[in-house]
Amino acid sequence: MLSHNTISFIKALHLKKKRNEHGLFLAEGDKLVRELLNSDFVVKQIYAHADWLRQYSKLLSRDIETNGATPAEMERISTLVTAPSVLAVVEIPEVTIDAEELLSGYTLVLDGIRDPGNMGTMIRTADWFGIRNIIASDDCVENWSPKVVQASMGSLTRVRIVNANLAEVFKDVAEISTQKNIDAPAVYGTFMDGHSIYGETFAPSGFIVVGNEANGIRTETEKFIDRRIAVPSFAGNENGPESLNAAVATALVLGELRRQQTKFAD
Amino acid sequence: MLSHNTISFIKALHLKKKRNEHGLFLAEGDKLVRELLNSDFVVKQIYAHADWLRQYSKLLSRDIETNGATPAEMERISTLVTAPSVLAVVEIPEVTIDAEELLSGYTLVLDGIRDPGNMGTMIRTADWFGIRNIIASDDCVENWSPKVVQASMGSLTRVRIVNANLAEVFKDVAEISTQKNIDAPAVYGTFMDGHSIYGETFAPSGFIVVGNEANGIRTETEKFIDRRIAVPSFAGNENGPESLNAAVATALVLGELRRQQTKFAD
Repeated sequence: MLSHNTISFIKALHLKKKRNEHGLFLAEGDKLVRELLNSDFVVKQIYAHADWLRQYSKLLSRDIETNGATPAEMERISTLVTAPSVLAVVEIPEVTIDAEELLSGYTLVLDGIRDPGNMGTMIRTADWFGIRNIIASDDCVENWSPKVVQASMGSLTRVRIVNANLAEVFKDVAEISTQKNIDAPAVYGTFMDGHSIYGETFAPSGFIVVGNEANGIRTETEKFIDRRIAVPSFAGNENGPESLNAAVATALVLGELRRQQTKFAD
Repeated sequence: MLSHNTISFIKALHLKKKRNEHGLFLAEGDKLVRELLNSDFVVKQIYAHADWLRQYSKLLSRDIETNGATPAEMERISTLVTAPSVLAVVEIPEVTIDAEELLSGYTLVLDGIRDPGNMGTMIRTADWFGIRNIIASDDCVENWSPKVVQASMGSLTRVRIVNANLAEVFKDVAEISTQKNIDAPAVYGTFMDGHSIYGETFAPSGFIVVGNEANGIRTETEKFIDRRIAVPSFAGNENGPESLNAAVATALVLGELRRQQTKFAD
């Protein structure tokens, strides 16, 4: 049986403040927890149905505190509507990305993404399209919030995300490029009035900047954008939709980028 | 002040059963409600802050029952975490689509989509890409659930959605095509092992079938699929993500379809 203190401790980790204080986050559900156990993440505690513990005992090293929990107990500690068979308490990793690592390939830059479902879906989509680095402005929804972790579907274990001051990142990258006497990666930003991604020829390396769901890319970030791009609408009437969902728009940009970079068999 | 009965009535409409019984659904938020008022939808009642009612009095015909509501009252009747300034009670429209209307252009077909956020995002994305008709299997999440309505961002006013037995729709369309001696629209289905959409040449007219988030397209539907397609992964490692979010995958297919059908300036 889980103690009152244990239950309080896990419930505290539902809150951002407590996650930051303890440096821990929660991951729920069989598939996600097994992905974390097979990754470089440090799983500190496991709470699970007895069945789950039996089935996956081989995944659980001695360093992991393991606790059997009844369905009723899982319901109390879970953040989900339907309680999972397993919940893990995991260390928030220290992730750093040097500006130098951003000189080649593509980086996704999130400027004030507020919806955790969008954030998680963007991480999952970036992973699908082989984007290894994500830079999120400091006011983005927290990477380790349960809804982000859930929507990322384990992609958090493969994609690196750091919070940073975007202006500083762009300045650092520009400076290093100058020092090395190479072209700086192109900075693409999505705007309603941007140039169609389908008519754009993407540079060999760059940043894809995506703005806040309601307000788009903020003015301070806009200064660093080289190319304003957009997913064109085919609604064919003036009263069509005003915008796409931010995660959908991001996926369409990344898909077109990769399509252009790849030779496909007919 | 709203009566207890009024509040109970609106809260009942949070539930699918009561929505079906009354033939009414809820729409919340300034932008969405104004789109509905400017559409063919029949708005029956409006509950709103006094400010909103003053500002938009011209939109409100005599047939609409209009009620001032305090922020505290809006909080009681709203389905949202943050109560909106306006909530509308709207008639569920009678939508029918003849098989004949599906012979040209593209139709989106949803086979067991369960997540309301995905469903709403798919409707919004279809609207963006000029898809006018959506056929949803009977076990899809209800089109008029508050979360679907919210995520669709008003696209419900422009896209037609009907629930139907998918097998019957495909049979009807095939039969009419034979009668008319024309090629039936191609039926594309998204599968993990499908042919890359980027190497596919899409037919002039067709159906894009998207399956359930966890289980994909069901076997009975699969029989009608002519071409198995997929969004290829660029993760570049075997331990990459297993799948894309269903709404994201749908968007990528629709985007590539429209890209192929359009000539873009460089």
